[in-house]
Amino acid sequence: MVYDFKTRRRVEFAETDMAGIMHFSNYFRYMESAEHEFFRSLGMSVHSDAEARGWARVDVHCTYRRPLRYQDLVQLHVIVQSIGERSMEFVVMFDKVVTVAAGAAEATETVARGTMTTVCVTRGADGALRSVSVPPEVTARIEAAPVDQLRELVV
Amino acid sequence: MVYDFKTRRRVEFAETDMAGIMHFSNYFRYMESAEHEFFRSLGMSVHSDAEARGWARVDVHCTYRRPLRYQDLVQLHVIVQSIGERSMEFVVMFDKVVTVAAGAAEATETVARGTMTTVCVTRGADGALRSVSVPPEVTARIEAAPVDQLRELVV
Amino acid sequence: MVYDFKTRRRVEFAETDMAGIMHFSNYFRYMESAEHEFFRSLGMSVHSDAEARGWARVDVHCTYRRPLRYQDLVQLHVIVQSIGERSMEFVVMFDKVVTVAAGAAEATETVARGTMTTVCVTRGADGALRSVSVPPEVTARIEAAPVDQLRELVV
Amino acid sequence: MVYDFKTRRRVEFAETDMAGIMHFSNYFRYMESAEHEFFRSLGMSVHSDAEARGWARVDVHCTYRRPLRYQDLVQLHVIVQSIGERSMEFVVMFDKVVTVAAGAAEATETVARGTMTTVCVTRGADGALRSVSVPPEVTARIEAAPVDQLRELVV
Repeated sequence: MVYDFKTRRRVEFAETDMAGIMHFSNYFRYMESAEHEFFRSLGMSVHSDAEARGWARVDVHCTYRRPLRYQDLVQLHVIVQSIGERSMEFVVMFDKVVTVAAGAAEATETVARGTMTTVCVTRGADGALRSVSVPPEVTARIEAAPVDQLRELVV
Repeated sequence: MVYDFKTRRRVEFAETDMAGIMHFSNYFRYMESAEHEFFRSLGMSVHSDAEARGWARVDVHCTYRRPLRYQDLVQLHVIVQSIGERSMEFVVMFDKVVTVAAGAAEATETVARGTMTTVCVTRGADGALRSVSVPPEVTARIEAAPVDQLRELVV
Repeated sequence: MVYDFKTRRRVEFAETDMAGIMHFSNYFRYMESAEHEFFRSLGMSVHSDAEARGWARVDVHCTYRRPLRYQDLVQLHVIVQSIGERSMEFVVMFDKVVTVAAGAAEATETVARGTMTTVCVTRGADGALRSVSVPPEVTARIEAAPVDQLRELVV
Repeated sequence: MVYDFKTRRRVEFAETDMAGIMHFSNYFRYMESAEHEFFRSLGMSVHSDAEARGWARVDVHCTYRRPLRYQDLVQLHVIVQSIGERSMEFVVMFDKVVTVAAGAAEATETVARGTMTTVCVTRGADGALRSVSVPPEVTARIEAAPVDQLRELVV
C-alpha cells in the first residue's frame, strides 16, 4: 500500500505570463499530471474508455507562497489525504529544487501547496456523469497517509 | 462605489478535455479574465508597466457542481468579498445560461463557485515581488459587497 | 452563400508569456475560436455528437509580423480559401484595432496571418478517425472566397 | 558542433480535447519546449534577462498525420535546418513511441512534423522588439544539419 508519490518537472516558457512567473492556473495542471503519474506508477490509468470511468474534480485549492519562474525545477509531492467510498482527497506540495554549490546536497523550498478532491464517475449513454464507488484496484493499492505525514504549508 | 460585476463568455473547444467537459484548470482563467474586465469597466488596469505594479495570487479555490461543455454560455459574477490594506478577496459565481423556450425568460444555473485572494505587489529591480498598499484609485471605486450579497453555493 | 466572417477578442493576461507578448501558440486557439464562431453564426456547429462528426486539422501555419500584448483588441477575419470534397482551407487575418483620437475612425493594423486546412471526419466505434465528405449543410451555406478577396500578408 | 536533439514527453490529460486527441495548438508548445531543452543541453538559455535578449517566432507550421492521445509517449526530434545572420529555422519531428512486445525493440511512428523560424531579438527600453545577430555562443555550438539529414514527412 502506498500513500504518496514524488515527481519533478521544469517550468516551461509557455507556462509563464507577462509578470515573469508561472501563471497561477498552471499549478492545477501540475497537480493533475503528478496525480496521473502516481496512478501510472502503480500500473493504473485514471481514465478507462472500456468502462467509461474517470475522475471528476469537485473541489480544488491552491496557496501560493513564492513564485515559480522559467526553467525552475519543481518537485511535486502528492499525498493521499483520504479515500472515501466514492472520492479521494490529495495534497500536492510544490517544492522548488534550489541549485546549491557543486558537491553539496540539493535543497528544496516549498513554494505552493494544493489540494484536490475528486469523485469517481462513469459517463452514461446520455453523457451525464454519475458518481460510483472507487474501484477495488485502487483501494487495493492506495491508502490514506498517516496523519503525521500530512504536511502543512504555513504561508 | 461598486462591489460586483457580471460578464459572459462561451466555452471554447480548446478548453474542453477528453472527458468532454471544460478542464477544471480553465475555471481559474475565467475567474481572472472576469476580474480584469471588472477593473477595465472602471477605467483601470490590473497591470501598470509604469509603476511595475500588479496583483499576485496568494490563495485560490474552486468548487465544481456541474460540468460545463463546449459552446455553453456562462455568466461570471464577480463579487468583492473584502478589500484589505494590501489585498482583495473575490468570489466568482459561474452561472450557466440555460436556453429556454423562445419568448420565455432566460434561466441560469449555478455550476461552480470560485474565490481568489490577491495581493497588490511591485516588482523590484531584482525581479522580486513585494506587497504594497492597494492604490487609492482602486479603493476610491471599489468596496466590499454587503454581507447579504455574498452568495453561497451549496454543493 | 458566405465566404468570410469577422469577430473580435481581447488578449487575456493568461495568454501572455514572460516576454510580455501573446504566446505564439495561442494564435491557433484564436483561429479555431473564430472558425467555430463563423459556423455558429450560420446556425451550425463544428461538432456533432449525434453523428460522431467533427473536423481534424491536417495542416496549420502562422506568420507573425508584430506582437500582440495584454488587452490588445484583435479583429479576426476568417476567409474560406477553398472547399474540397472532404476538406476546407481557411485564412485568418489578425488585425489589431488601434485606438485613435476620439471621434476619428478606428484603424486596424495586420499583425499576423494564419491558415488552417481541416478535414471532415467521423469517429468509428474503435475511436479511429476517418475522413468523410463535407456535409451538404456546409456546402449549401459556405463557398470559397473570390480570388481577389484572398488577402495576402507581406511580412 | 551539433545540429539536432531528441527528447521525449507524455501527452497529458489537460492537453487533450473533447475529440479525445491532443489539441492541435499544443504541438507548438511541444516544439518550443524541445527547442528550449536543446539549448539547455548545450548550457545555454533561450532567454537572457541580463541582455534583454530572446527569440521571437516569425513563422511556424505543423502538418498532422495521425492523432496523439492521452498518455502517448512522443519522441521530439529537433533538427536545425538553417542558421542565418539573425534567425534560425528548426524542423521538429513528432514520433510516437509504439509499445511492442516485451523484449523486442521499441518502434516509433511519425505522427506530425513542425517547423519554426525564429529571430533573435532584444527588447528596447520602450518595450519594442528589435532583431539582432545570433549570439556567437550559439553559432559556436550549433550548425545547420547536413542536407541529407533533413527528413521529410510525407502526409
